[in-house]
Amino acid sequence: MKIITFLSDFGTKNSYVSQMKGAAVGITNARLIDITHEITPHNIREGAYALRSAAPYFPQGTVHVAVVDPGVGTGRRGILITTSKQILIGPDNGILMPTAHFLGDFIVYEISNEKYMLNSISSTFHGRDIFTPVAAHITNGVPFEEIGNRLTDFVDLDFGQGEIRENAATGTVIYVDRFGNIITNLTREILSNVLVYNKNIMVFIGEKCLEMPFVKSYGYVKKRDMLATIGSSNLLEISINQGNAAKKLSVKEDDKLEILFS
Amino acid sequence: MKIITFLSDFGTKNSYVSQMKGAAVGITNARLIDITHEITPHNIREGAYALRSAAPYFPQGTVHVAVVDPGVGTGRRGILITTSKQILIGPDNGILMPTAHFLGDFIVYEISNEKYMLNSISSTFHGRDIFTPVAAHITNGVPFEEIGNRLTDFVDLDFGQGEIRENAATGTVIYVDRFGNIITNLTREILSNVLVYNKNIMVFIGEKCLEMPFVKSYGYVKKRDMLATIGSSNLLEISINQGNAAKKLSVKEDDKLEILFS
Amino acid sequence: MKIITFLSDFGTKNSYVSQMKGAAVGITNARLIDITHEITPHNIREGAYALRSAAPYFPQGTVHVAVVDPGVGTGRRGILITTSKQILIGPDNGILMPTAHFLGDFIVYEISNEKYMLNSISSTFHGRDIFTPVAAHITNGVPFEEIGNRLTDFVDLDFGQGEIRENAATGTVIYVDRFGNIITNLTREILSNVLVYNKNIMVFIGEKCLEMPFVKSYGYVKKRDMLATIGSSNLLEISINQGNAAKKLSVKEDDKLEILFS
Repeated sequence: MKIITFLSDFGTKNSYVSQMKGAAVGITNARLIDITHEITPHNIREGAYALRSAAPYFPQGTVHVAVVDPGVGTGRRGILITTSKQILIGPDNGILMPTAHFLGDFIVYEISNEKYMLNSISSTFHGRDIFTPVAAHITNGVPFEEIGNRLTDFVDLDFGQGEIRENAATGTVIYVDRFGNIITNLTREILSNVLVYNKNIMVFIGEKCLEMPFVKSYGYVKKRDMLATIGSSNLLEISINQGNAAKKLSVKEDDKLEILFS
Repeated sequence: MKIITFLSDFGTKNSYVSQMKGAAVGITNARLIDITHEITPHNIREGAYALRSAAPYFPQGTVHVAVVDPGVGTGRRGILITTSKQILIGPDNGILMPTAHFLGDFIVYEISNEKYMLNSISSTFHGRDIFTPVAAHITNGVPFEEIGNRLTDFVDLDFGQGEIRENAATGTVIYVDRFGNIITNLTREILSNVLVYNKNIMVFIGEKCLEMPFVKSYGYVKKRDMLATIGSSNLLEISINQGNAAKKLSVKEDDKLEILFS
Repeated sequence: MKIITFLSDFGTKNSYVSQMKGAAVGITNARLIDITHEITPHNIREGAYALRSAAPYFPQGTVHVAVVDPGVGTGRRGILITTSKQILIGPDNGILMPTAHFLGDFIVYEISNEKYMLNSISSTFHGRDIFTPVAAHITNGVPFEEIGNRLTDFVDLDFGQGEIRENAATGTVIYVDRFGNIITNLTREILSNVLVYNKNIMVFIGEKCLEMPFVKSYGYVKKRDMLATIGSSNLLEISINQGNAAKKLSVKEDDKLEILFS
């Protein structure tokens, strides 16, 4: 089973994504699956979160190509990352790193062997000319070492996993979605022993201290009420049922939060 | 030939749809085809119409997964429906029913066997954790009876087919599209003996009575003129050429209409 | 390796694209790849440019179905075009022609053999009922001559390739993208001997004469500065870094331009 996924900020109004797929199908018979192409242009953190959300649901051996690449055409490098489960390919700007940290046991290679790139490489579209052809060759069994040398000074981006101390947890806001839901780096696993459904918790965030219930889903609180829940990415989220929590609390990405359990 | 289609209100800006596909490709080598993921959030009727429009063009044995699911996380059940031609999987809220009525000879099963779900089931994403894995296992030949018991008290939604009496037809508005075209439940088949191209008909709808031509396509009337036509879903539509018919006639879904043929 | 691509102005909020794919998978096991479905409605030129941009990256034998079709339901013909490399299918309104000129050695056939269409043909959806089934049968090896007779009076649309005279080039604006970038018909090949990176050129366009650098990518000029570059489609583009060049220069499609090299 060969699978390549694609994630980018190219949008879907142009033919760019199809150019990547055209390059892929000329090399491999792998299945091609889109993650999303509507990442906010140049928003590496948003792209990193989307990849981190999707990767756990793909099988062993899946090759992910992620292209949010404000530095294309400058000196930034392209990298291939192997992990214990899947392979990640894209620019060396951090977009791949939260997924690499999550999947674990990762090794970073610089993409340098031109043998596995398109013949004519444009300055502005490495997704099509470099990353996709490399991904396609990898699904055909080309050894990682053929792609380039190992790198240790890659650009890192780590969402972390938060920390638990007795009846408190500290974490970070990794992403605010377009509905204003505040997604934290506190995982279901780390919280499993301290959180109890339908009990209230205290949340210190954005210079405010709020009491809210921890519930299974939005439906358990009234409209406009605040809630904490484990979202579909297995991360703790702070939300307002049919409202915008990030706006109300003036919270943005990278803000810290602390939670007290009763 | 194994085929799974996906329909939802998840949008395409996040990674949710790809999470469903990741779950699918881990189980089956079926072809994965999107119907649409831009159903207006929580609009079951719109989703039901889109599925009903698309299903007739797919081959025997296709498995459709449709997830417009405002009740997720509450007690609503998941169902699998077999018909004489295709298989439908989704929440028990009516979204599958117009297609089931159209395809005919349907049997409804409750989805209850956890053996065919993902190991870790979130409260908020049954599309990924339950419906898609079940669909994937079905394409691998798992018998329907393995999924759960037969249900008879499912939530029904039937667009009906209208009624013909001599030189009149009565029907219902099943959907208003984003251009304001009024799509009725009157099928090409039921009208084939009474409608004649380029002849005028009288339409009683929204407390108005209007005369308009029945034509092959929009191009047969002048700009801003009203027309009746059989749309690409083989249903009678009332439209204004380059205008918004629903707005002009104050017509909404579920409204009745009557047509007189001369 | 069988591949069918799809390009249209149908949007992605309805089920139309999936109806085409449903028709395809009932006939062929070819891989199905979307180019884009968000061409501005009825904009044949924009569709033609998108197809021309994507086709070069697809393998020999790929069948492209392009449906921007304001004339559907009238007498306009459907055509199949063979080239030395790929096959093009769509309405006879010019949308396929820039790609045919680019791929070269093309022959145009009228699509007339009903044996290769769906049984029931709607007046308004030839993409599903005619073009896709024909494309699917072609991937199964049906000879081109079986589809219909050769045509010579097809509707032509040719973006041309510009002209080089000593230290000047004359060309045409073929497309303005949604960011205001001005895409010309001057190819990388025709300019390769005269353009030198990081040297200034004079551009006569839209009744203005402007000096700007020819650079590898946007990053080489300051914000709001004008630049000329070879875009990812291998065509010369005039742009403003983070600005709208077409607006500033009052340039529109089909305008002429002249370039002087120092």
